[in-house]
Amino acid sequence: MHLSYSTIHPSEAREMIRRNEWIKPTSGVSNGFIQANLAVLPKELAFDFLLFCQRNPKPCPIIDVTEAGSGTPALAAPSGDIKTDIPKYRIYRNGEFVEERTDVTDLWDENMVGFLIGCSFTFEEALLTNGVPIRHIEEKCNVPMYKTNMPCVKAGVFEGPMVVSMRPMSEKDAIRAVQVTSRFPSVHGAPVHIGNPSAIGIKDITKPDFGDNVTIKDGEVPVFWACGVTPQAVAMQVKPEIMITHAPGHMFITDLKNEEFAIL
Amino acid sequence: MHLSYSTIHPSEAREMIRRNEWIKPTSGVSNGFIQANLAVLPKELAFDFLLFCQRNPKPCPIIDVTEAGSGTPALAAPSGDIKTDIPKYRIYRNGEFVEERTDVTDLWDENMVGFLIGCSFTFEEALLTNGVPIRHIEEKCNVPMYKTNMPCVKAGVFEGPMVVSMRPMSEKDAIRAVQVTSRFPSVHGAPVHIGNPSAIGIKDITKPDFGDNVTIKDGEVPVFWACGVTPQAVAMQVKPEIMITHAPGHMFITDLKNEEFAIL
Repeated sequence: MHLSYSTIHPSEAREMIRRNEWIKPTSGVSNGFIQANLAVLPKELAFDFLLFCQRNPKPCPIIDVTEAGSGTPALAAPSGDIKTDIPKYRIYRNGEFVEERTDVTDLWDENMVGFLIGCSFTFEEALLTNGVPIRHIEEKCNVPMYKTNMPCVKAGVFEGPMVVSMRPMSEKDAIRAVQVTSRFPSVHGAPVHIGNPSAIGIKDITKPDFGDNVTIKDGEVPVFWACGVTPQAVAMQVKPEIMITHAPGHMFITDLKNEEFAIL
Repeated sequence: MHLSYSTIHPSEAREMIRRNEWIKPTSGVSNGFIQANLAVLPKELAFDFLLFCQRNPKPCPIIDVTEAGSGTPALAAPSGDIKTDIPKYRIYRNGEFVEERTDVTDLWDENMVGFLIGCSFTFEEALLTNGVPIRHIEEKCNVPMYKTNMPCVKAGVFEGPMVVSMRPMSEKDAIRAVQVTSRFPSVHGAPVHIGNPSAIGIKDITKPDFGDNVTIKDGEVPVFWACGVTPQAVAMQVKPEIMITHAPGHMFITDLKNEEFAIL
């Protein structure tokens, strides 16, 4: 990636994406700014889904919600448009994947409500700044993610198990990782589990349900964080008539700085 | 107050309140447990109101939301009932105060959604534990509250200025107060302003809009926190057909411990 993409302002990045001049993952673009997962649902499901996120803030940290029919995330990116400013969308009908697109304007109607949900890029940046290495970045692959036996708190029609992401590290780094990520309660926050995978229902740590397997070295401990895939997985089970998400890694880049989300 | 009331479990306190054996403020009952403000609104306003709270977490920290028609706060107090377990309710119709009650069961229908919103008791307990004195407690009156010129972030039909509470203290204590209350981002969190009242639109600090005036001693600085009165004030402006709140000081006592809401 050309160095300049890491330093351009999010509004420039979004315009580039809107013009379909950037149709690839957004990792490393506009460093220091919050990137978000997208889930778009019909209005009749919006209250239950927002309540589900409110009840499960670790896997479902809400960054912004658009008003029904609007594409504008008024808080996170007033000049942005969630209908066009994501490099690649996925469309699901009745819970089934239908197609990928670079623009969803023609699918929009007055009933669509968009949820921008925090992603792990924010706390990963903080971990790296603190000298905690991140294995899947070193190995240039996706973070391994697992379904657990930890139930989310139900809200209306939405329920299901928590999905976690895993980063292996030394026990010393694990302590620092708890401290560092605790500063960011609104983007997943502290780990939900450290150590024995079977304690949270993971049978084989080498076989993630999503993403890629990574090396766990001798003396390292797996550290698990609540994952933003959870709300998408839970929403999908309801088989909504239509649901729009980002394609993995193709995020919405907000105007909000990562450090604004640190509470200390 | 008899010492035992401070140590009874919240479930006992709620049963006592349900039987109308406690019809007075709940301050000091079941110490260490989160007490919450109540706002009940019709379902058609619930999504916008939840979104308003989500966008304005400092004045509107959501503790729990009941599902439409249910009186059970499943997260905060599974054995509780928000229709009966508050010592005194206020009923508003079309934005006008109509009556006070000790039970709202007969006003309930399948459209009612209850919002439990964090209150300052939680961080006040933490301030006292840290040796930061609280003037309105010393002077045995209500905390002074002021309308400000700081707008909340609009959501749907809900908008309006933030209401703040004020506690005067030494500048040394003000620093400790920032640290202590930053640990509790989900119950108002850090102050929103320290010092000059006119900077946030307060013309006369001796004339609070709600609550009582308290002494500000020489060398003390006023410290302002976002106040849970904000969402009620904002909701009232919409003049909902019906809205139910707690009477001031007559709170809902949850099973959640204050310290569970500390992020560090």
